[in-house]
Amino acid sequence: MKLYVDREYASPWAMAVFVGLREKGLDFDVEALDLAAGDQRESGFARRSLTQRVPSLVDGDFALSESTAILEYLDDTQPGPALLPTEPRQRARARQLQAWLRSDLAALRAERSTEVVFYRPTDKPLTAAGQAAADKLIAAATQLLGDREHLFGDWSVADVDLTIMLNRLILNGDPVPEALKQYAARQWQRPSVQAWVKLERPPL
Amino acid sequence: MKLYVDREYASPWAMAVFVGLREKGLDFDVEALDLAAGDQRESGFARRSLTQRVPSLVDGDFALSESTAILEYLDDTQPGPALLPTEPRQRARARQLQAWLRSDLAALRAERSTEVVFYRPTDKPLTAAGQAAADKLIAAATQLLGDREHLFGDWSVADVDLTIMLNRLILNGDPVPEALKQYAARQWQRPSVQAWVKLERPPL
Ligand SMILES: [Ca+2]
Ligand SMILES: [Ca+2]
Ligand SMILES: [Ca+2]
Ligand SMILES: [Ca+2]
Repeated sequence: MKLYVDREYASPWAMAVFVGLREKGLDFDVEALDLAAGDQRESGFARRSLTQRVPSLVDGDFALSESTAILEYLDDTQPGPALLPTEPRQRARARQLQAWLRSDLAALRAERSTEVVFYRPTDKPLTAAGQAAADKLIAAATQLLGDREHLFGDWSVADVDLTIMLNRLILNGDPVPEALKQYAARQWQRPSVQAWVKLERPPL
Repeated sequence: MKLYVDREYASPWAMAVFVGLREKGLDFDVEALDLAAGDQRESGFARRSLTQRVPSLVDGDFALSESTAILEYLDDTQPGPALLPTEPRQRARARQLQAWLRSDLAALRAERSTEVVFYRPTDKPLTAAGQAAADKLIAAATQLLGDREHLFGDWSVADVDLTIMLNRLILNGDPVPEALKQYAARQWQRPSVQAWVKLERPPL
């Protein structure tokens, strides 16, 4: 299998799929596209990709984009540990979190891009909208996590999504409750996560 | 079960869940929230909802938001026809389309809001960004659909998502290839879809 990602290894959604492939113990190659240079619109990739977006997985003659679809496909077709919870309500809550983190909190994602996580912090304060999104994230994360080690029983790929989102604040020095900081620090040390964090990145 | 939706019945994602519940033959009540008035932040709904977003489904003591998570939950826990394809690669393609339509084509969604679909057309021309999104949608829809009646073998809820997105253009009189127009017109006549289309809407 081949996984297409962004050249900076900064896409949180590419990271989620990379971690999923590692957790499954699958053999795969990573190909990094220079999105600023339009690599995703060039032949080869573009011909196989419906949406010309990363992450994109190529499995033999089958090409698939959208991180949540790819992760579900891995659970549906590959052996190894489940990436999402197997109990229906826990699985539903994990999917809810995945969908929510991909479609809400826009101000937080803009003001604390993953450059903060993978390159360097920013000294720009959050706007009111950014702080409101941070507050909403912290409230939801606190409610979901309680005093558990993982969100939904065993580890799931939803833990990766939540950790990256929290680290947009934590690694920038923005205030986050101690319990969430400890959760994110533990999750960040997971070997599959560290394999992504430690990839060698080009200068911005 | 109770489904929370927007007061204007204009959310395409609420519509997808409504159609899914109808296709499953489930008994459910609809409660419309006045999002402009902040109903989603008031007690009752807010206490049960992690993200204070619609659509949201309450099934006994279980509350769940995010349309894709709700639709998967219905397939995982309820009898009746499958809402997503059951063959893994078709299911993956359907999930890809769901995720893509919820996270890309922002200019098209802004310039051709679902007010065009459920209230009245607009005479504002598409900007270059809006037209680029329309072109990308049409190219992907043409490639996915081929000459089939439904996207992925039997009907699936992905057909609803694609039809609403195409109708942002078609019902506004913007140019769309004839084959896609015919597909959308057929899909729009589906009884579960018409049940949503015909809901009585308040003035904007
Ligand atoms: Ca390899
Ligand atoms: Ca290039
Ligand atoms: Ca009823
Ligand atoms: Ca109110």
